[in-house]
Amino acid sequence: MNTVAAPQEGAIRVALLGCGTVGGEVARLLTEQAGELAARAGVPVELAGIAVRRPDKHPELPPELLTADAEKLVTSDEVDVVVELVGGIEPVRGWLLAALKAGKSVVTANKALLAEHSADLFEAADAAGADLYFEAAVAGAIPLLRPLRESLAGDRITRVMGIVNGTTNYILSAMDSSGAGYAETLDEASRLGYAEADPTADVDGYDAASKAAILASLAFHTRVTASDVHREGIADVTAADLGAARILGRTVKLLAICERVTDDDGVESVSARVHPVMIPRSHQLAGVGGAFNAVYVEADAAGELMFYGQGAGGAPTASAVLGDLVAVARNRVVGGRGPRESAHAALPVRPMGQTPTRYHVSLSVADRAGVLAQVAQAFADHGVSIAAVRQSDVGDRASLVVVTHQAPDAALESTVDEISRLDVVHEVVSVMRVEGEDQ
Amino acid sequence: MNTVAAPQEGAIRVALLGCGTVGGEVARLLTEQAGELAARAGVPVELAGIAVRRPDKHPELPPELLTADAEKLVTSDEVDVVVELVGGIEPVRGWLLAALKAGKSVVTANKALLAEHSADLFEAADAAGADLYFEAAVAGAIPLLRPLRESLAGDRITRVMGIVNGTTNYILSAMDSSGAGYAETLDEASRLGYAEADPTADVDGYDAASKAAILASLAFHTRVTASDVHREGIADVTAADLGAARILGRTVKLLAICERVTDDDGVESVSARVHPVMIPRSHQLAGVGGAFNAVYVEADAAGELMFYGQGAGGAPTASAVLGDLVAVARNRVVGGRGPRESAHAALPVRPMGQTPTRYHVSLSVADRAGVLAQVAQAFADHGVSIAAVRQSDVGDRASLVVVTHQAPDAALESTVDEISRLDVVHEVVSVMRVEGEDQ
Repeated sequence: MNTVAAPQEGAIRVALLGCGTVGGEVARLLTEQAGELAARAGVPVELAGIAVRRPDKHPELPPELLTADAEKLVTSDEVDVVVELVGGIEPVRGWLLAALKAGKSVVTANKALLAEHSADLFEAADAAGADLYFEAAVAGAIPLLRPLRESLAGDRITRVMGIVNGTTNYILSAMDSSGAGYAETLDEASRLGYAEADPTADVDGYDAASKAAILASLAFHTRVTASDVHREGIADVTAADLGAARILGRTVKLLAICERVTDDDGVESVSARVHPVMIPRSHQLAGVGGAFNAVYVEADAAGELMFYGQGAGGAPTASAVLGDLVAVARNRVVGGRGPRESAHAALPVRPMGQTPTRYHVSLSVADRAGVLAQVAQAFADHGVSIAAVRQSDVGDRASLVVVTHQAPDAALESTVDEISRLDVVHEVVSVMRVEGEDQ
Repeated sequence: MNTVAAPQEGAIRVALLGCGTVGGEVARLLTEQAGELAARAGVPVELAGIAVRRPDKHPELPPELLTADAEKLVTSDEVDVVVELVGGIEPVRGWLLAALKAGKSVVTANKALLAEHSADLFEAADAAGADLYFEAAVAGAIPLLRPLRESLAGDRITRVMGIVNGTTNYILSAMDSSGAGYAETLDEASRLGYAEADPTADVDGYDAASKAAILASLAFHTRVTASDVHREGIADVTAADLGAARILGRTVKLLAICERVTDDDGVESVSARVHPVMIPRSHQLAGVGGAFNAVYVEADAAGELMFYGQGAGGAPTASAVLGDLVAVARNRVVGGRGPRESAHAALPVRPMGQTPTRYHVSLSVADRAGVLAQVAQAFADHGVSIAAVRQSDVGDRASLVVVTHQAPDAALESTVDEISRLDVVHEVVSVMRVEGEDQ
């Protein structure tokens, strides 16, 4: 990219905020694929400016496009669409609200911002008649949000469940195949570039929780924010957990699970959670390895759907951004805007304690009569029904594995708490929620 | 559905053509989910009329909506959108052209019509500023066309490959697990309702070829009709083919394969074909069983994507139709229309003979010196490079399996023809194209 053409008549002019891995790829594609993009959008799509923190650090970009003043760029008369790839909440939130209020459409990959402040952003977009697109915010290149927003708009989605964080999926896949522990595997992942220098957002589940909030909002037409999402990361997943899973023909994945829950009185609510889950190795999500993402969607009429692809990386994320950009450009050409968001269902968010889950519990217990009876009684006392039990002797101890039927998560947690205090229980080896039926 | 409300102010009024399995489900959902659909579309969506061949045969539908006169219904002032679920070319083509010319938007699941006459239909839609949506025409409930048309609009798709016909997938899956032959398995599939009384459209690949034409057109922005698609069905797939595949850790699937092919001079063309293929059992498409559909999409920036779900059936297909209907309604609300089709790339369609493929050939040959040399020479004579050979003795004969590298399909075909005429070759046991790398 060495020369910048003069602005073309009728072109859609794009302000790019941030020019790192994804932004650089977007800038490259906008230039190299200009002819193709114009044919698809029905109008040329051009870069009007690129806001970066330090313009002098970007000799690869045309200097006349560079600015450090994002605030000024987003409301410039030269700009029709703002593509935001900076990330984080502030000052980005202010920039995007200003852009929308000025009638600019916005394309963003900012999951953290959307998971916290989507209400403000959607209202500003609606008020101005502008588009707000964010396919790249969840599951990178996988076309997932558009199908949820549009293709399934006539259906009733009951569940969205998937692997939406590549770093944790890489670590859990590696732990599963090597038998190594968490800390060691995280070190290896960092060395290989699969984990960031500060991996907190990934391994503690913040990234997945933001994505779960966005998915639940779209699927259930309800505002769900990241703070509504129950979040557990993978830092407590042990080699023993993976070992226990292996014995049962299962593996462990960090899943985002968004469900429509109907209680006994027929009252509907939404549950959104992120935590490690044991799933059968025969489950299609079990085969999703490395840094790939995959998401299951279940709907009343459509049945079961799955979407699979690369969840991160410069080029895949840029693909999603450009798809949105072409959509915005096409909408401008026909004088309309894309379908707006809707939170019309406004379902209550169900607390995790009241969300129905199933537990797997592996115990090391004394090998004597009456132990199983005591453990079983603890489940019964909390109203938890047992689906399967497996007991095997190891010297003077026994290994006892219990898989439950569905029960409120709080009842399961209390049961485990009580069991861990029983004299006959030497150790709680592994406790983990399970999904999917064994075959 | 016992009562019909008076038309609501500002409602989008729908004419339904055909009321069989899918149409009945659409009518049911339009009535039962009226509130939800109105919330999503931003405007009520109502049935204005239902055209069926014999209104007296539909006591389950409100009589005041029924008519036998589809031609009159589609241009009625009472109608905004026509949903066509009759199928076949004529008289449907005339009805839909009349509807589009009258400014009505059209939602259709008619793959045969789209695969032959999409140019007329798109031109009529463009001229009238009306929408033409057809998500249900390919892969039933799976949101596939919208991602191709919209989400990947900024990317460069290089390949679309998948299982798009449930009947043939059911038959091949059953042959694979039972070891039974084709005729026997087809009978069984008919008895169980997985194959139609006249299964020609499915088993001879016509249905998949129509879908391949639609997929190639969208993916490569080029008009591809069903007659451009090389088509082979599954009637010639034998138990011996499945057996040969099994020995190699492979299975057989009927795939639709649409590719962007660049020749040595850098000239681009499009190849679209439907035929049985041996794929490794480790390939994700190999695990797609029964009547499910799954489609791989490869794009420059997005990388590899997969879409999986139910490819047929009343409810899944109705889900796709309603998604389109909501999109049309939303477009009307904002006064715009959805992204139009584009055939701007207008790439030439490559004949099958010039399309690069790979062959698997299983031979029964004489067990004596020089046989392999003769067979290998035949491949060399046609410029075909061999990727793998496996020879094993069975009494006084030997089994010889050859897997080739890529070569023009015509060269491969000629090679097999020559080999079959060699004296040392007793029988050509199985010839089949292969896709996917062995692991």
